[in-house]
Amino acid sequence: MRLGIDIGGTKTDAVAVDDAGTLAHRVRLSTGFGSPAVVETTLTAITDVASLAGLAAADFESIGIGIPGVVDNRSGYVRHAVNLGFEELGLGDALAGRLGVGVRIENDVTAAAFGAYRLLGIESSMAYLNLGTGIAAGIVIDGKLWRGARGTAGEIGHIPVDPNGELCPCGQRGCLETVASGSSIARAWITDDPHPALALFDAADEGDSKAVAIRSRLATGVASAVRLLILTMDVETVVIGGGLSHLGDRLLGDVGAVLSSWAESSTFLASLELTSRVRLVPEGRPVAAIGAALVGGA
Amino acid sequence: MRLGIDIGGTKTDAVAVDDAGTLAHRVRLSTGFGSPAVVETTLTAITDVASLAGLAAADFESIGIGIPGVVDNRSGYVRHAVNLGFEELGLGDALAGRLGVGVRIENDVTAAAFGAYRLLGIESSMAYLNLGTGIAAGIVIDGKLWRGARGTAGEIGHIPVDPNGELCPCGQRGCLETVASGSSIARAWITDDPHPALALFDAADEGDSKAVAIRSRLATGVASAVRLLILTMDVETVVIGGGLSHLGDRLLGDVGAVLSSWAESSTFLASLELTSRVRLVPEGRPVAAIGAALVGGA
Repeated sequence: MRLGIDIGGTKTDAVAVDDAGTLAHRVRLSTGFGSPAVVETTLTAITDVASLAGLAAADFESIGIGIPGVVDNRSGYVRHAVNLGFEELGLGDALAGRLGVGVRIENDVTAAAFGAYRLLGIESSMAYLNLGTGIAAGIVIDGKLWRGARGTAGEIGHIPVDPNGELCPCGQRGCLETVASGSSIARAWITDDPHPALALFDAADEGDSKAVAIRSRLATGVASAVRLLILTMDVETVVIGGGLSHLGDRLLGDVGAVLSSWAESSTFLASLELTSRVRLVPEGRPVAAIGAALVGGA
Repeated sequence: MRLGIDIGGTKTDAVAVDDAGTLAHRVRLSTGFGSPAVVETTLTAITDVASLAGLAAADFESIGIGIPGVVDNRSGYVRHAVNLGFEELGLGDALAGRLGVGVRIENDVTAAAFGAYRLLGIESSMAYLNLGTGIAAGIVIDGKLWRGARGTAGEIGHIPVDPNGELCPCGQRGCLETVASGSSIARAWITDDPHPALALFDAADEGDSKAVAIRSRLATGVASAVRLLILTMDVETVVIGGGLSHLGDRLLGDVGAVLSSWAESSTFLASLELTSRVRLVPEGRPVAAIGAALVGGA
C-alpha cells in the first residue's frame, strides 16, 4: 500500500493506493494557510488515511506529496508556494522528522501527470496539460517523469504566442498564460459566479458576443499549447487536466475544432493528427494524490 | 572503430571514429541527386573510409547514416528527402543488401545532436538547435536521443510565434521558420553573394537599416527558439548548429543580447539563466557524421 497527498490551495486530498495501483481509501480536508498549518494539515491527512487503511505511516511502501510550488524533489524543499501562504519550506524534512519515515515531495502538476499516466493506462509518452489558475505541463517519457535539468520542465505558460498580446505578470507580453488559463478568464470575464469558466461557457452558448470571443480565445490558446507540446517533444498523447478540465467535452470539443481547422489549412499539421491525440483526465478522480502515491516507486 | 556518414544536399561527409569517440579518418564527396545516386554516393563514401581505415565494411562495430528526411530509424526507411531528389527510399535495406551488414539510419539533425552531445562532453540534457534552410532541434535526455513517439520530436520550426506573421510554406502563419532560418533570410535579403547570411551581417555592420532589421528579427527568432526549448523541456544546454552557426560569435552575441534584454524585464526569465545555457557547435567538426557513427551504439 502507498500513500499520496495532493495539497491544494483550498483542499487537501489524501489517498491510499494498493499494489495494483487501485484507489483503496480517500480523505479530503481543508488546507491550512502558511507553512506551519500546511505541515499540520499534511500530517492530519496522513494519519487519517493510515487509520482508514489500518496501518501506521511506517507501514506504507512509500508516501508522496504533491504541492503547488517550485520543488526540489531530491531535498524535499519547496519554494514560492504562493497559494499556500509561504515562500520557503523544508517540507520533506519537516514531515520525516515528525513521522519517522521518508516522504517524497513533488510539484503537484508533476504528480498529477504521473497519476494520469497510470490511471489512463498510457504506455507511450504523454504530457499532462494542467489548466488551472496558470497553465503548465507535466511530462512522462519512456514511462518516467521528465522533470527537466533544473526541475522546470513544462513551464509553457510563459512562452509568448503573440508579440502584441497582453502584458503577463511575469514581465513578458502575450504568454500562453494570458490566453489559456483560469486567471486569463477571470480577468476578461468579471462575474460573481463561483464557477466563472462555466458561467462564461453558458453565456457564450446564449450568444453573448464578448463571452463567445473569450471562449474562442481560450480554445485557440489551449490548442496552441497542444501543438507546442507535440511539435517540441512529440509526446503521443496530451491529457488535459486542472480546474478548467471540469468544462469537460465542451472544452475538448472547442479545442478539437480549432485543431481540426488548422489541419485543414496545413497538410503538415494534418499529418500529425493532433485532434486525436488530446483527451481529458478522468472526471472526479484524485489524479494528483494518486500520482503522488505512485511516484514514490517511480 | 565505427563508421558514420552525413548525407548533405551538396556534400556527403564520411568518418571513422575510434573506440574513444575520436575522429580517425574523414572523406568528403559530392552527393548524387535522386535515390539511385544517393545510394551509390553512400556506398562510395563507406568504401573510401573503410579503405583509409584498412578495414572491410563488416569489420566496423557499427555503421550509421544521417540523412535529411523523415526517417523511420527502426526500418531504415526514408521519406520526403526533398533536397536529395527523392520522395521514398528503403535506404537501410538498400545498403544492407549491398554491404552484407546492417546499417543504422537517422535523421541528420538527430545524428548531429548526438554528435554534438558527445563532442562537447555534455553530461546533462541538451537540445541541438539546427539553423539551416529550416529550423529544427534534436534532443538528448538522460544520455539518450529522444526521437519522439512518432519520430517528429524537435519540429519546432512550425510552431507559430506571431499570429500576424508571414505565411509559412507549411500553411500556417508566423512560424518560427519564417523568422529564424536560412530560408527566411534568403526571402528577406536578396543577394548574389554565395554566403547570404554573412553578407547580411556585414551589411548590418555597415549600417544598412534593412539589414539591421532582418538581422535583429533573426536574433529574436533564435532567442525565441531557445526560450521555447528550455521552458518546454528544461534541457540544460542548447547547442546551436547548422549552416547559420558559421556566423559564430556574431550570431551568438546577437542572441545572447536578446535573451539578456528579456531577463531584464522578467525576473522569471532571469531565474532561468537562458543566456549562459546557449553555445555554438564546435566550428569545422563533422558533428552529424560523428553522431551517425556513434549513434549506432546508443
